[in-house]
Amino acid sequence: KIRELVLDRENHEMSHLTEMLLYAASRAQHVDEVIRPRLENGETVISDRFVDSSIVYQGFGRKLGEQVRVVNGFAIGDCVPDVTFLLLIRPEMSLMRMEKGKEDRIEIAGLDYHRQVYEAYLMLEKEAGDRIHAMDGSLPRESLHEIVRNRMIQWMGDHYGV
Amino acid sequence: KIRELVLDRENHEMSHLTEMLLYAASRAQHVDEVIRPRLENGETVISDRFVDSSIVYQGFGRKLGEQVRVVNGFAIGDCVPDVTFLLLIRPEMSLMRMEKGKEDRIEIAGLDYHRQVYEAYLMLEKEAGDRIHAMDGSLPRESLHEIVRNRMIQWMGDHYGV
Repeated sequence: KIRELVLDRENHEMSHLTEMLLYAASRAQHVDEVIRPRLENGETVISDRFVDSSIVYQGFGRKLGEQVRVVNGFAIGDCVPDVTFLLLIRPEMSLMRMEKGKEDRIEIAGLDYHRQVYEAYLMLEKEAGDRIHAMDGSLPRESLHEIVRNRMIQWMGDHYGV
Repeated sequence: KIRELVLDRENHEMSHLTEMLLYAASRAQHVDEVIRPRLENGETVISDRFVDSSIVYQGFGRKLGEQVRVVNGFAIGDCVPDVTFLLLIRPEMSLMRMEKGKEDRIEIAGLDYHRQVYEAYLMLEKEAGDRIHAMDGSLPRESLHEIVRNRMIQWMGDHYGV
């Protein structure tokens, strides 16, 4: 329901700060209801987008800065990813892939916005060191799968000696 | 729409952190859309509940602590009230006043929760010094009006010499 609010193009009067806080609220609920119980149960959780997306889309794209990290830090607590895969695709190409007229409130933000997001992801990747693994998102699915698989085998060896 | 989400009793799985972030989002939007434009226009804004409510209901009642102040600080920026009136009413009496079966998600939280909220308001009032003016909420409407009026006349004199 929170995500519906934040993505609805009818809500054009929504401030950037409100958008950021709504994403954080949605993330807090997701961590509490879905992710943390499974981790505590010893399961592995794979998530499509997480705090990095907020740091980039709201912190840099919407120019809200450091407060995005602080708020999202509260939202997830100690629930931080071990490994993150970043699929890079040029903003020009990703905009072409969107279905015209069906873009959500974030997707319609325009090329300049999506270029800033792209640059911010590259910066974040450098800063995060080993945790974020950037990949060429235009590679065939099979190649991406191979890269992810090899990285995870290496990671499991480093951390669990398997 | 955000307030509808947060007050809807159907959303019984909502975490306390989510609740706090949703209130902050709603407040950020309200400041951006309603309060700040009017202040910039030289108008006086009177608000029923503001950040103090979040500090008390979520920070103390839900035991989320200091992060509530930090997040709400981001939400309102420099938009801080000059004068706050606190109408005190014993939790036992306020619960009696609620319409049975029509309580919202906050109101059904029970007597212990509302007692903590009451104590937290008293603590906040001490801490805030001159800004928060506590009043006996069980006084007749006319007496409350008189107290508010006198306090504001005094405040205008102190600040604008009128």
